Amino acid sequence: MKLDDWLNNDVPTIAEQLTHINDQHFDIAKTIGFKGREQIIKVIHNFHAVLFPGIYDRKPIDETRVNVAISNNLRSSALDLRDIIEKVLVYNNFADCENKCRQEADAIVMKLINCFPKIRKVLQTDIQAAYNGDPAATSTEEIVLSYPSITAICIHRIAHELYKLNVKIVPRIMSEYAHELTGIDIHPGASIGESFFIDHGTGVVIGETCTIGDNVKIYQGVTLGALSFPLDEDGNPIKGIKRHPNIEDDVIIYAGATILGGKTTIGHHTVLGSNIWLTHSVPPYSRVFHSQPSPSISNSQHHALEFEI
Amino acid sequence: MKLDDWLNNDVPTIAEQLTHINDQHFDIAKTIGFKGREQIIKVIHNFHAVLFPGIYDRKPIDETRVNVAISNNLRSSALDLRDIIEKVLVYNNFADCENKCRQEADAIVMKLINCFPKIRKVLQTDIQAAYNGDPAATSTEEIVLSYPSITAICIHRIAHELYKLNVKIVPRIMSEYAHELTGIDIHPGASIGESFFIDHGTGVVIGETCTIGDNVKIYQGVTLGALSFPLDEDGNPIKGIKRHPNIEDDVIIYAGATILGGKTTIGHHTVLGSNIWLTHSVPPYSRVFHSQPSPSISNSQHHALEFEI
Amino acid sequence: MKLDDWLNNDVPTIAEQLTHINDQHFDIAKTIGFKGREQIIKVIHNFHAVLFPGIYDRKPIDETRVNVAISNNLRSSALDLRDIIEKVLVYNNFADCENKCRQEADAIVMKLINCFPKIRKVLQTDIQAAYNGDPAATSTEEIVLSYPSITAICIHRIAHELYKLNVKIVPRIMSEYAHELTGIDIHPGASIGESFFIDHGTGVVIGETCTIGDNVKIYQGVTLGALSFPLDEDGNPIKGIKRHPNIEDDVIIYAGATILGGKTTIGHHTVLGSNIWLTHSVPPYSRVFHSQPSPSISNSQHHALEFEI
Repeated sequence: MKLDDWLNNDVPTIAEQLTHINDQHFDIAKTIGFKGREQIIKVIHNFHAVLFPGIYDRKPIDETRVNVAISNNLRSSALDLRDIIEKVLVYNNFADCENKCRQEADAIVMKLINCFPKIRKVLQTDIQAAYNGDPAATSTEEIVLSYPSITAICIHRIAHELYKLNVKIVPRIMSEYAHELTGIDIHPGASIGESFFIDHGTGVVIGETCTIGDNVKIYQGVTLGALSFPLDEDGNPIKGIKRHPNIEDDVIIYAGATILGGKTTIGHHTVLGSNIWLTHSVPPYSRVFHSQPSPSISNSQHHALEFEI
Repeated sequence: MKLDDWLNNDVPTIAEQLTHINDQHFDIAKTIGFKGREQIIKVIHNFHAVLFPGIYDRKPIDETRVNVAISNNLRSSALDLRDIIEKVLVYNNFADCENKCRQEADAIVMKLINCFPKIRKVLQTDIQAAYNGDPAATSTEEIVLSYPSITAICIHRIAHELYKLNVKIVPRIMSEYAHELTGIDIHPGASIGESFFIDHGTGVVIGETCTIGDNVKIYQGVTLGALSFPLDEDGNPIKGIKRHPNIEDDVIIYAGATILGGKTTIGHHTVLGSNIWLTHSVPPYSRVFHSQPSPSISNSQHHALEFEI
Repeated sequence: MKLDDWLNNDVPTIAEQLTHINDQHFDIAKTIGFKGREQIIKVIHNFHAVLFPGIYDRKPIDETRVNVAISNNLRSSALDLRDIIEKVLVYNNFADCENKCRQEADAIVMKLINCFPKIRKVLQTDIQAAYNGDPAATSTEEIVLSYPSITAICIHRIAHELYKLNVKIVPRIMSEYAHELTGIDIHPGASIGESFFIDHGTGVVIGETCTIGDNVKIYQGVTLGALSFPLDEDGNPIKGIKRHPNIEDDVIIYAGATILGGKTTIGHHTVLGSNIWLTHSVPPYSRVFHSQPSPSISNSQHHALEFEI
């Protein structure tokens, strides 16, 4: 059969099969869908601009007009976010009348935006921590414009406030967008203190019920994860249990370390070495690292020295 | 010299040198080029929309018109893909006459799209596996809209069908696009069963000749790779050899584990721990993990406890 | 309070607070800002097109017009880059008169573009190294169009020339853009020889003061990093010290290996195994790897075999 004929004859049947499969699993009329995802990404871009007035904006703006520009941006983004949150609340049967969903969405957006000055102040401690923590950094401008750590923590600090306001899917879409941009996967539920810095960052995973103190530095590939999780009678994971570790103040965790479990606490001023694997607590001021053996020659065939580690 | 003068005087010579270098290595008139890459990415976006009718679409569509929208989308994407595949077949000297390349391209596109209902059904098992496998997941809607695992496996299941139809470069561009979005690098050649879930996913590598059974769960940073590969007489790697492991049903592989080699089989119901490194087979129901030593205090200077692991 | 009223009444105050915080930390009138970041990304896209004439271009161009197209592209991109570099020099107080900043910016752009034929020739060795180093590669076209290694090293080789010309923030923005696309984080300061190949690449980190010889192959998750760094009297890291390792010619480093320290030299023709952790030098022709223990059965409860590694 020629492709043109096939497209006209067979494709509608395939389309109908696909629609039927989808209908079985999703309430298409109610989901925010991928369009909602795109709107949320647009909102997070605008919020980023709001938090860094005059720096983020796509066109240079007269400094005297910065305030007006931010206010306008905030107003339109707030309304966009309200519409999405309202739709999410309706989808989740938050209330029996749509008017209540609208009121609740309004309240959530106001609470979120009220936090912005506080969030911006904490972000400045994160910027300073990056400058202090990386010998390669030459200016705080360079950090704001190019460090993935700042992108990830900026989006996280907004997403975390929304998470606390019980709108789960919106902050998750925000955090996965940060993950896509940076390779840093921070669940919106994670609670993170001031002066937080992730160097390089690719492959970092920070789980939902993690708590991280002030002045913590993490390198690429670090996992703060769950050890295992209990299942309910139907074999499904039980939601809402503390599953991820606590990291106290002034801890440094080097590349590729894996720290697991909700009962694991890393005491303050501890240094955890590269590629270690920890499932229990360590006290303050600990130094935990792989032993670095002297290499031993085990084979010199073809001038090859073999070392075992 | 002033920049403006230099641009007029010297740049054409530089441009000529660059053109000359390129001409030595590529048949510019025949390659699909970066334009082809962009078209392939557009096709994969449209196919994603087709597989999730009403959810993926960028504008909300009347449910009764979903079928028409999918059919139209499928028809235009099918023609776009056919044009690219035809160009690839001509470039690779598939046949001595262009008409045969066109017929073959038509046949490939029809075979691919005929698989879509089957692919969509299997994707539903992947969505369910993510929901069952992640205590942080609150709904299947959240999984479809935000989990990188679903993006990666959706693109992979399409790319794998094309790979089996012997059009190598097109599915490779698709899989590298998924890699760019998600940090998950699955070669289109890999064969993957139902109910597959990759949590977090950054840094996962799954090689070309891997086979993976049903109900397998993998965490971030896992490599299913080649141990080494034989070279031909000219020192080039021999293509087409089984180089990557087999993972049987119901296996869990935790973060950062590295499993290498075409003769390595991981028996069903096995659990592989974080950061392990395996180059040989293990039988069904195995538990393989690093020993987790009790930390020993080796130095208390400045209140520092040193643990070796 | 209703959201609409709140937006009109309270948002201007929040905007003012945010502007005030930002003014304390940044010279908004002088920074290149996120607009500068976007311009730099546009320039790097255009340079990519220039280096692969006829392949990268978004619309197919008559081969005879390729030279004209490249020349035009180079001319406009050169002027765009000059404007950004001039702004950076002014911001950094490079000279007391703006005219000198313009002249210096002109000189830098000319020096960079003069390197392009040399860069393109070296990139061809990188493309060939990828083809030789990956049994899954089917053509050099596939490598140029889909391998993240080529994207990362192409951007790096441009960024590194700029770094040597003392414009730090511009190449850093380029390298972080490559990092975002590929998960490969190469600091522009790193010096890298010919025929360089990074397979898969996600999570690779190559530090600022690294030197890498010819014909080196690296896999995903490899870190060439700093062991630690000295602080000045105020507790800030001292900038400009050699902190990262030297990798000699013909070295292979497998997935997840971590090599740290400015005094660490990996001798030529060495092979470093997966997940090893090295902080000292090894001589030429070394083979360094984790010992792979025979698994021992430690528990057969529920048919479970436990292996410790």
